Amino acid sequence: MTHPVGAATAAREASRTLVTRTGEARASAVAAMADALEAHADVLLAANAEDVAEAAARVEAGTLSPSNAARLVLDRSKLSALALGLRQIAALPDPVGRTLRATELAEGLVLTQVAAPLGVLLVIFESRPDALPQIAALAVRSGNAVLLKGGKEASRSNRALAAVLQAAIAPFVPPEVLGLLEGREAVDALLGRDDLIDLVIPRGSNALVASIQARTRIPVLGHADGVCHVYLDAAVDLVKAIPIVRDAKLDYPSACNAMETLLVHRDLVADGRLALVLASLPEVAWHASEAQAEALGLPVAPALHHEYGAAAATVVIVDDLAAAVAHIHAHGSGHTEAILTEDGSAAEAFLASVDSASVFHNASTRFADGFRYGLGAEVGISTSRIHARGPVGVEGLLTTRWLLRGQGQTVAATRDGRVVFTHRALPQPTGGG
Amino acid sequence: MTHPVGAATAAREASRTLVTRTGEARASAVAAMADALEAHADVLLAANAEDVAEAAARVEAGTLSPSNAARLVLDRSKLSALALGLRQIAALPDPVGRTLRATELAEGLVLTQVAAPLGVLLVIFESRPDALPQIAALAVRSGNAVLLKGGKEASRSNRALAAVLQAAIAPFVPPEVLGLLEGREAVDALLGRDDLIDLVIPRGSNALVASIQARTRIPVLGHADGVCHVYLDAAVDLVKAIPIVRDAKLDYPSACNAMETLLVHRDLVADGRLALVLASLPEVAWHASEAQAEALGLPVAPALHHEYGAAAATVVIVDDLAAAVAHIHAHGSGHTEAILTEDGSAAEAFLASVDSASVFHNASTRFADGFRYGLGAEVGISTSRIHARGPVGVEGLLTTRWLLRGQGQTVAATRDGRVVFTHRALPQPTGGG
Repeated sequence: MTHPVGAATAAREASRTLVTRTGEARASAVAAMADALEAHADVLLAANAEDVAEAAARVEAGTLSPSNAARLVLDRSKLSALALGLRQIAALPDPVGRTLRATELAEGLVLTQVAAPLGVLLVIFESRPDALPQIAALAVRSGNAVLLKGGKEASRSNRALAAVLQAAIAPFVPPEVLGLLEGREAVDALLGRDDLIDLVIPRGSNALVASIQARTRIPVLGHADGVCHVYLDAAVDLVKAIPIVRDAKLDYPSACNAMETLLVHRDLVADGRLALVLASLPEVAWHASEAQAEALGLPVAPALHHEYGAAAATVVIVDDLAAAVAHIHAHGSGHTEAILTEDGSAAEAFLASVDSASVFHNASTRFADGFRYGLGAEVGISTSRIHARGPVGVEGLLTTRWLLRGQGQTVAATRDGRVVFTHRALPQPTGGG
Repeated sequence: MTHPVGAATAAREASRTLVTRTGEARASAVAAMADALEAHADVLLAANAEDVAEAAARVEAGTLSPSNAARLVLDRSKLSALALGLRQIAALPDPVGRTLRATELAEGLVLTQVAAPLGVLLVIFESRPDALPQIAALAVRSGNAVLLKGGKEASRSNRALAAVLQAAIAPFVPPEVLGLLEGREAVDALLGRDDLIDLVIPRGSNALVASIQARTRIPVLGHADGVCHVYLDAAVDLVKAIPIVRDAKLDYPSACNAMETLLVHRDLVADGRLALVLASLPEVAWHASEAQAEALGLPVAPALHHEYGAAAATVVIVDDLAAAVAHIHAHGSGHTEAILTEDGSAAEAFLASVDSASVFHNASTRFADGFRYGLGAEVGISTSRIHARGPVGVEGLLTTRWLLRGQGQTVAATRDGRVVFTHRALPQPTGGG
């Protein structure tokens, strides 16, 4: 463990080298990471066993929850699954240097816009050590250096993983592109260094994300909360809707893409369909707004913007689709919302109007996820409107550069006609540079 | 003039309506703005004449520079040129709702990533009133509401322009999408409101941009400074290079894309070519680093990271291309850098290594500009690495949304094989939605 600012300075320097290496070198580094996870399984599992033993003692003592302890555990099959995922990331086409746009500005003067790494990422993640190799692989493949700060409970696992991965990539890229940080002070020391860190990605509880966002001017990619809505339209088909509401709320109640609020068209109250929905989901602790609690015979929800993170949800009756959209804009978090309806024009109106990162028709909010979206893996889900929005894979770790290749052209010459703007779009070559 | 928070709240509301209108409606609004500039020229020029008269008195009194006063002036030909530019923006294909990616996730479950407006922009610009209609047109065409805060000297012109443009767009889109702010307090009142403002774009002096960046957590698009470098490689052709260096420094010395530092390969000192370059540009006040000043017989530069904003520049002798790149990374601002050389592999190494928004070979840094890049117009040049980088046109005012259209799919069903991921890329339809 070097000093965090020293590690960040080394990562910045190494990131400059990383971007000048070939895409093949970056892919080889990721493939070598995959091989090393399997080749050094004994070392990794021994370190992990120490963390797990300590966690078991803390569960015994009541200072750690059993579910948090369970998330710590690595085994051979998990390492193989991780290796498989890393090999998929290695096999991606090189995202760095990909030409996004090519324009002939004037004769012999060609402008290209190419994808470029962001630089140095600071990723803060909680207990699961599996996240470390995944994030490291996404970073290296996209030409970024990354400083990783894991959970305290996984510190031995994270140290072993970082050492194995650094050794694995060393033949191909500078090993300083992967830095391991320990302790909250390490993060604190870097949150003020926008000269060293380009993007902070906190993965974990809402409290973690909000705390990071409050303490830095460096751009933060993440979501502070996920208050997702499902709207049951008047033309809803309950045969489809009940399994979707069940999935959205109960598949993983504490996930950020789980439903927190069920918006219901008033017709469903009158004709008894709402009662059928609620009766079909007895596992959910249903709540209502202060204004509607008495009429619905439900307890009052803590707030309209409230993330239960448990098998509980708020029911809100609305007059129509416009009222549902207005409720989402007033009380949502811009994460994921769904409309369940057989009315195609209502569905399209909802998709066009709702200003959230993900907007669905007749599908569960739980699909809002990088793997399910086909992005391969994700570094997180962004509810920011700037840069990357929704599930973020390799593309969210890239920015662009503009390259101009000329033959001596000056701007003065465009005024006297010696250089004439053509602004002709050119076919875009694919592949890295 | 309503209260700034009231104007921002109205703009937020209006932006939700704007995005649900058709691309034709947004285009018609911009075309109507163009027509109104010409139809109401008398009113606009009368208001402008009052601003110009007051400015003339201030120049007389020595409280305003003649160049700032000159930038205030509107006339019929300027209004026609503005109208022409606005008609080009109206004619752009609708950028809102454009499909960027389409994937079949599973049978009957289709994901599209579409372009979406950022929401509400806060644009702060200095004296030139011409900027107001240009920014308003870029915002409306891209589906964004915009709050505009102009310079005090142009307040009558800006009020007249805003009133004419709001009336012109009213038949097509809510006029509240264009809001005019007056006074620094109006900006101050909004810099803390990230619930109302999505992006701040300061256009003006470095001091203005730095002051805005220091006072808000809302993302800021802009550049605090432009310390651009030109590197004369050992294999430079002086016949091309001297006009480029002249253009880069003298075409508009106070521009952000003007050269501030001339990096020179040491061979050019030994063989006398540097002396020839300096002698060819006697209008430039050349400076040197503290270490090299005596040897070069030049005065010491105020700093290596220094924007002269005048016909002055710093000469720095470097050992080789790697040293030039290292100097740029250590002392540049990431804006625009150029290499001048006949050695193709040196040029490509420079283009691959230099981590700036724009990197050029054998062309003047002055080409770094939205119009010259073929983007039609620009709201500014970004040196941020996040979101938009370099000259920013309509695309930098957009984010994305993910739309998922299903038939009742749940995530639970992907685990038991009832829903099978296909993750098949679909052809992308073009055009707005």
